[in-house]
Amino acid sequence: MPGNSFGQSFRISTFGESHGPALGVIIDGCPPGIAFDQERLERDMARRRPGQSAIVTQRKEGDAVEVLSGVFQGRTTGTPLALLIRNTDQRSKDYGHIAEAYRPSHADFTYQIKYGIRDFRGGGRSSARETAARVAAGSVASMFLEAQGVFCRAWVSQVGHLQLNKPYAALDLSLTESNPVRCPDPDMAAQMEALIREVRKDGDTVGGVISAVCTGVPPGLGEPVFDKLHADLAKAMMSINATRGFEYGSGFAGAPLRGSQHNDAYVVEDGRISTATNRSGGVQGGISNGMDIDFRVAFKPVATIIPPQESVDRHGDAVTVEGKGRHDPCVLPRAVAIVEAMAALVLADHWLRYRGQGHFQDPEAAQQDAPGIRDFPHP
Amino acid sequence: MPGNSFGQSFRISTFGESHGPALGVIIDGCPPGIAFDQERLERDMARRRPGQSAIVTQRKEGDAVEVLSGVFQGRTTGTPLALLIRNTDQRSKDYGHIAEAYRPSHADFTYQIKYGIRDFRGGGRSSARETAARVAAGSVASMFLEAQGVFCRAWVSQVGHLQLNKPYAALDLSLTESNPVRCPDPDMAAQMEALIREVRKDGDTVGGVISAVCTGVPPGLGEPVFDKLHADLAKAMMSINATRGFEYGSGFAGAPLRGSQHNDAYVVEDGRISTATNRSGGVQGGISNGMDIDFRVAFKPVATIIPPQESVDRHGDAVTVEGKGRHDPCVLPRAVAIVEAMAALVLADHWLRYRGQGHFQDPEAAQQDAPGIRDFPHP
Amino acid sequence: MPGNSFGQSFRISTFGESHGPALGVIIDGCPPGIAFDQERLERDMARRRPGQSAIVTQRKEGDAVEVLSGVFQGRTTGTPLALLIRNTDQRSKDYGHIAEAYRPSHADFTYQIKYGIRDFRGGGRSSARETAARVAAGSVASMFLEAQGVFCRAWVSQVGHLQLNKPYAALDLSLTESNPVRCPDPDMAAQMEALIREVRKDGDTVGGVISAVCTGVPPGLGEPVFDKLHADLAKAMMSINATRGFEYGSGFAGAPLRGSQHNDAYVVEDGRISTATNRSGGVQGGISNGMDIDFRVAFKPVATIIPPQESVDRHGDAVTVEGKGRHDPCVLPRAVAIVEAMAALVLADHWLRYRGQGHFQDPEAAQQDAPGIRDFPHP
Amino acid sequence: MPGNSFGQSFRISTFGESHGPALGVIIDGCPPGIAFDQERLERDMARRRPGQSAIVTQRKEGDAVEVLSGVFQGRTTGTPLALLIRNTDQRSKDYGHIAEAYRPSHADFTYQIKYGIRDFRGGGRSSARETAARVAAGSVASMFLEAQGVFCRAWVSQVGHLQLNKPYAALDLSLTESNPVRCPDPDMAAQMEALIREVRKDGDTVGGVISAVCTGVPPGLGEPVFDKLHADLAKAMMSINATRGFEYGSGFAGAPLRGSQHNDAYVVEDGRISTATNRSGGVQGGISNGMDIDFRVAFKPVATIIPPQESVDRHGDAVTVEGKGRHDPCVLPRAVAIVEAMAALVLADHWLRYRGQGHFQDPEAAQQDAPGIRDFPHP
Repeated sequence: MPGNSFGQSFRISTFGESHGPALGVIIDGCPPGIAFDQERLERDMARRRPGQSAIVTQRKEGDAVEVLSGVFQGRTTGTPLALLIRNTDQRSKDYGHIAEAYRPSHADFTYQIKYGIRDFRGGGRSSARETAARVAAGSVASMFLEAQGVFCRAWVSQVGHLQLNKPYAALDLSLTESNPVRCPDPDMAAQMEALIREVRKDGDTVGGVISAVCTGVPPGLGEPVFDKLHADLAKAMMSINATRGFEYGSGFAGAPLRGSQHNDAYVVEDGRISTATNRSGGVQGGISNGMDIDFRVAFKPVATIIPPQESVDRHGDAVTVEGKGRHDPCVLPRAVAIVEAMAALVLADHWLRYRGQGHFQDPEAAQQDAPGIRDFPHP
Repeated sequence: MPGNSFGQSFRISTFGESHGPALGVIIDGCPPGIAFDQERLERDMARRRPGQSAIVTQRKEGDAVEVLSGVFQGRTTGTPLALLIRNTDQRSKDYGHIAEAYRPSHADFTYQIKYGIRDFRGGGRSSARETAARVAAGSVASMFLEAQGVFCRAWVSQVGHLQLNKPYAALDLSLTESNPVRCPDPDMAAQMEALIREVRKDGDTVGGVISAVCTGVPPGLGEPVFDKLHADLAKAMMSINATRGFEYGSGFAGAPLRGSQHNDAYVVEDGRISTATNRSGGVQGGISNGMDIDFRVAFKPVATIIPPQESVDRHGDAVTVEGKGRHDPCVLPRAVAIVEAMAALVLADHWLRYRGQGHFQDPEAAQQDAPGIRDFPHP
Repeated sequence: MPGNSFGQSFRISTFGESHGPALGVIIDGCPPGIAFDQERLERDMARRRPGQSAIVTQRKEGDAVEVLSGVFQGRTTGTPLALLIRNTDQRSKDYGHIAEAYRPSHADFTYQIKYGIRDFRGGGRSSARETAARVAAGSVASMFLEAQGVFCRAWVSQVGHLQLNKPYAALDLSLTESNPVRCPDPDMAAQMEALIREVRKDGDTVGGVISAVCTGVPPGLGEPVFDKLHADLAKAMMSINATRGFEYGSGFAGAPLRGSQHNDAYVVEDGRISTATNRSGGVQGGISNGMDIDFRVAFKPVATIIPPQESVDRHGDAVTVEGKGRHDPCVLPRAVAIVEAMAALVLADHWLRYRGQGHFQDPEAAQQDAPGIRDFPHP
Repeated sequence: MPGNSFGQSFRISTFGESHGPALGVIIDGCPPGIAFDQERLERDMARRRPGQSAIVTQRKEGDAVEVLSGVFQGRTTGTPLALLIRNTDQRSKDYGHIAEAYRPSHADFTYQIKYGIRDFRGGGRSSARETAARVAAGSVASMFLEAQGVFCRAWVSQVGHLQLNKPYAALDLSLTESNPVRCPDPDMAAQMEALIREVRKDGDTVGGVISAVCTGVPPGLGEPVFDKLHADLAKAMMSINATRGFEYGSGFAGAPLRGSQHNDAYVVEDGRISTATNRSGGVQGGISNGMDIDFRVAFKPVATIIPPQESVDRHGDAVTVEGKGRHDPCVLPRAVAIVEAMAALVLADHWLRYRGQGHFQDPEAAQQDAPGIRDFPHP
């Protein structure tokens, strides 16, 4: 079983190598009748695009997205959308030096041994260029979700040792796009940007953490027992290049606590059942409970650095690998759009899976539920 | 799409409620010809079983496993194995008080709203009792893997604020089973046990962290781009009840580092290509590289506590929920077996998926690989 | 990827060998709140059961079905239903003679070569005993469908050379259960029964055809392009033991026709759009159109016969295989329940898949549809 | 769950509408290292292409296939192949007349009611133009299979009432491509061609049957119990536009026979176990037995005819639908390539699934098998 598809009901399949003719994605299962917003798609692509600011790679990738199918008269038709992104700035000659060498902490070695052959140009299929297709697909998922009032927003909350230690409720997320780092706290953003510039000067790279919150998620999304909503979010995030960790709600910080400190008390607010605190991160038993879903994703520093590194080639001989220009000193500002895209894909998929589970069949029992429950929109 | 199955080539489907007649699992895709070791299965079940020590719940669950199919003359046949576990100590009367109430940080509310009906006895399907089926299935996966030299071992590395801050290479993992906490450091284990006893005395619970390492994994396991090996491990672990976070390799601690500090240099050792360090956690580009795969899983404190808690019922009315006896003050000692089981299920699945990708078709190119690479056993 | 599961949204996984301890099925994805009708389940099982009449095998199989999970207070809960059927009349000693021999037109040889090991008792996993699990699952699917007004009915339309050449509209399907052959035409049923008795006297077997019709299917079920409704029906039917052919609507008889003879004209009846004829068999472009769905399934004669047959064993040596008593001279009367079960499973699955595709998003466009269309119940 | 993918281990996903910008396919799971033969791909496309002879539609479709990914230095890499086919002769203005009308026996009505919106140009997604993507994917599957000695060959065996009543062993299949009908019997081909010309003159269409045989298939392919090899072939064939029936081996003609006439006796030939006859069609218990796999597929007459037909539009009003030029009087000559492609896709998929089931684990038992069995190449 190959691994280039994600989701079950809202299902994407991506293809393409970093330096091949094109990459792209098929979205199968997008509901019909959704207004397709090409401008919004382009905005999302621009947030992931190289060259968008001074602190990201200066490669010039042509990220124009051509819609090949599935949209008619401005609306989705329920048939597969195919989105095509041509590669235009390939410079394959740059990569002759790594045709046989294994770059440290890259996927050169593992692809070679798994497949016995690899497209070594720019990392081929293992390149983060593949995430362009995810952002395009996630943008379509968001068109669907936002029409239902569901929003996924991510931001940079750590770069290197610089941590933004404020709960998201204390942040003005509308400021995320106001700076090239995509940190909604302007002071911290300035410090982070300075750090990235310093790292870049050294030809080095640095890791960090992206935080995210999904709002407006109705209760009921997520399938027990393996396809818990947070388990699918974990897989989605950990499938992004360079990620090393995932936590939601109280996360690792919840481990030292006691149950009496950690439990979220149910309350009735505005006629709806909700919880007074949200250490559950909006998910209980794998199913959304109507509260915000918040999570964090750790990224390691990008493996491509400028200083020479000792390594070996496929013959087992010692080689020196040198980074060449135009790489990201810190991938997090561009990865914000990818985290949002993957979150939207998970939620759109579970929205449709929930809807496809069938109706409640026992209206009498439902009568006994609190009005707030009965009134929740059943997807 | 329902969510009670896991894996693609080595695929399990579990069923059963906490207080129904039985629970169990179908394993579809287990390779034929594997010697079936019932004693080993029982040993694994005993490690998850309630009542095994003074610091876990004293419920008496009958965890005898009956093999209904798929084994003939002591060997697996390639057809589905069905494993049945009867529920014997159900005491359903204990649960009348929560038929309508929503216990804080449990799944009562989310199941009610998702399905409009729920088996409230002991949490029904949302109970961690379901993990008994996982341990049984994981034991079969381990029978397969260990015959190939692959081992998954987990242990408790944090309980409450007590952290075992040693790298796993500095631990003697054979000591894990020497104490009821399942911490391989005897001193730390004693402290942890004392803490759990104290928490229990308060009728409270406490969270923690389980660490794990998989050894003997050949390079090549894991499917780009979504089904990366660590992404599937993340999903597997986050699907376990009460988990809040997952990290592998350098994890969240890798975020502050620079690329020049973090990269793993390739070296040739004993004629094989390996890496001098292992911040990659044994996985590069989502594919195993032959190094140890290590990861950590955060668990929140168990939601069931003895002191009364304010909550609401399904009618939206205020209620007081009281915990009743026989619950786990700390779930981690019993969860060690679950973490190992889920890791084995992921690896067995990816072993078969790798094998099913087809042969290398270009022997000439393979000739150019280092001898160490050519000699790696191709699953 | 193993092959013991069927369906996507309403998904079953079966297990069990003919002479192992038990067989059964997990149903994952059954909607919550459906009234579970144990009596109906038993009635369906009785229609497939051996020993039900003089013209079927006289084996005594204990087909009592135990519900292990997924039903609470008489209703489905949305969690997996596990249905268990113990094997009680195994007589394993009967099968020693085929431990090494390959019975002609059985699966002994193919299982041996595929798996290197096989449970030879009664055919093991390849035995049609597995279909007991399908009938149990299909019965649950029918509980769901019939509550929506959808019914699947099958009958025997050919035994040997005896063909019932009446369109189903000319038959009184309520007579199907009035005779042991399950042919709704009493005269033809009597002839068929006589033929089966004659065949049985010779220790021989005979094939035939089962016809079926599904009524009340709303338009919109079926997914283009591969999961067309009739394609999934074809797979479902061809997965039943001993089947050799499938056709729907005009079938093979449509091949000689011209388009001008074959096309179904649209008409408006009772304010609804329907077709004047139904050579399309209720499916156009893979999607149901609201008309009856009718199809036919060809069965070969059962392979087990009493007269000695020349064959070989696993060592390649010549052997003589003799049938022993208690086999079916004609499998069709018992297979009627299996055909109905598989049809119900396909329709329940596509009902949920359709529902899970999402809402219409363009109410304005929908306004322009004929009232009859707008009023069709959207699953 | 959407329905635009087929296969599990060798998995294709198609996209595209008849008159959109492009259609195409992603192949995920193609083994690495296969020599990619673009010329062969073009030959296969040419056999399905409109305008190839006087008896098929004279539409001019640009079927040039662009490979966007998954091939490097002339070989497949194990990553997804994306194949793109631009639509060039769209003439959308031709289709204004059916924007609201429902053409008889087309999918206009069912798409409208399922999705609430449809791309009406040329049938949109329901057009047989989609099969161009299948032929492209099937060609890649054949590159893989033929390197293993497996060949799938189809031919036209019936047009209208004209039936080729010879067993395939009596045919010279190398003659299939010698005439525009693709019937390997020259006399029958001439009669069929004359019939198609006559039908075309009337502006009418005619149905028929395509026969096929797969040779060189090793024993062991096919998964019990639902994913039987012939069940997957049935689904594959019935997913092709305009099909109405499928049969394999003895087919519907096997129904009247007795077991003593129908069973295939095992024999040892050239040190291999095979069967003296092949009424099983090369499949026993759903698993290939090493014999030829033969089957037949019935096609209804194409729905598009020139004479005016009475119908209704989406408002329920009566309309007259007239066919316009350039349609196929008989789709069978072009469908031969599609049948071969779908057969190859099924076999490639099951080849990899078989390989991915794991090794035989019991070499001692295997020793006891006939030499012919041990020597069969295990995929």
